[in-house]
Amino acid sequence: MQNATKLGVLGTSVVGRTLAAKLAELRHSVMVGTRDPAVTLARPNADSFGNPPFKVWREQHPGIEVGTFSQAAAYGEMVVNATSGMSSLDALSSAGHDKLAGKILIDVANPLDFSRGMPPNLSVCNTDSLGEQIQRAFPKTSVVKTLNTVNASLMVAPKQLADGAHTMFMCGNDAASKAKVAALLESFGWQDVVDLGDITSARGTEMMLPVWLRAWGALQTPNFSFKLVR
Amino acid sequence: MQNATKLGVLGTSVVGRTLAAKLAELRHSVMVGTRDPAVTLARPNADSFGNPPFKVWREQHPGIEVGTFSQAAAYGEMVVNATSGMSSLDALSSAGHDKLAGKILIDVANPLDFSRGMPPNLSVCNTDSLGEQIQRAFPKTSVVKTLNTVNASLMVAPKQLADGAHTMFMCGNDAASKAKVAALLESFGWQDVVDLGDITSARGTEMMLPVWLRAWGALQTPNFSFKLVR
Repeated sequence: MQNATKLGVLGTSVVGRTLAAKLAELRHSVMVGTRDPAVTLARPNADSFGNPPFKVWREQHPGIEVGTFSQAAAYGEMVVNATSGMSSLDALSSAGHDKLAGKILIDVANPLDFSRGMPPNLSVCNTDSLGEQIQRAFPKTSVVKTLNTVNASLMVAPKQLADGAHTMFMCGNDAASKAKVAALLESFGWQDVVDLGDITSARGTEMMLPVWLRAWGALQTPNFSFKLVR
Repeated sequence: MQNATKLGVLGTSVVGRTLAAKLAELRHSVMVGTRDPAVTLARPNADSFGNPPFKVWREQHPGIEVGTFSQAAAYGEMVVNATSGMSSLDALSSAGHDKLAGKILIDVANPLDFSRGMPPNLSVCNTDSLGEQIQRAFPKTSVVKTLNTVNASLMVAPKQLADGAHTMFMCGNDAASKAKVAALLESFGWQDVVDLGDITSARGTEMMLPVWLRAWGALQTPNFSFKLVR
């Protein structure tokens, strides 16, 4: 995007942190939202992936504000759902329908169900998707699904692979919203953004997770992306 | 593969025809299998995609034999399942467990259910796959899933796109079977064959069909392939 925008980023895992840091680096104003900021900031330990406690990250990014889900949603002219897929609907409800109404919600979550072991299955797929569930639950919000087919590092720095010669998918019901999100993606370095169509296309991109997880095992790195060669 | 092999190709749609023709061109001996050869050869009309009647194709490929599913399965040292996914288990049962025992079955089918309109959903996914269903039903056969993420034309001629710089996935329980199938894929021109693991990985590649179908709409061509950029 050409102009600085206020963004609310919901979620404090590595995905939320990475997106928030990149947006701030691009001179946008950012508030990260979490269920209970005091609890999140009090956590003393690294997460299960070895990422430092949120309070350490927060000290390293003093320009980024921290609030509740509701505060971050209210703050953002545009909002990013970077919560875990299984809790996204709950987190967004906590953010509030009124705070999200009339805004673009960039949904990067995947409905991965880890409760039955590894690799996770999808909690919804084939005839429905998390993207659609969110769009149905928040009809006054314009949901654009994207970035869910790469890891956090690649989301904001696609040029680290093949100088950016790979593809990011995007879907959503509103063309103007998708144009804005495509501009944001391009500001991250994405050069080949493919609009798959309406939000039902989220079935397609969320259903890439099983092959993504297997490819991670086969390649022994999560740092890969799909290029649509045509 | 270095040496000429006898192959049975089950299915007479464009996928079966294209694979059979390429295998014959590569000097393998091929028998195409269909439920009832007399019925298939008697069909006077083009199929719904505009492909000519099977009898026309058969006259153009006099070196390729035609038989029942059972005859083609018995004929092949290696067998290809190119039947439609929804009827694959039935077709393979008709071919016969004894005819398939001890052999590699290359499964290229997708469990697309067109009964509820377009785009089709998958009849099985997420916690199971067609590849797994076939492997369970034919435990004496070594099922290798591959080629199901591109159209028939690209299956046998990957170099028509980006000089072949894109990826074919493969999965199956037996490493020796996968090595043989990889050699066959390389003889078609595939340069980047990624072994995703055991046959449960077929969930991943079959679940790429929804995004494949949406990308077909977005790109306005089915002539595309996924490259795993890393």
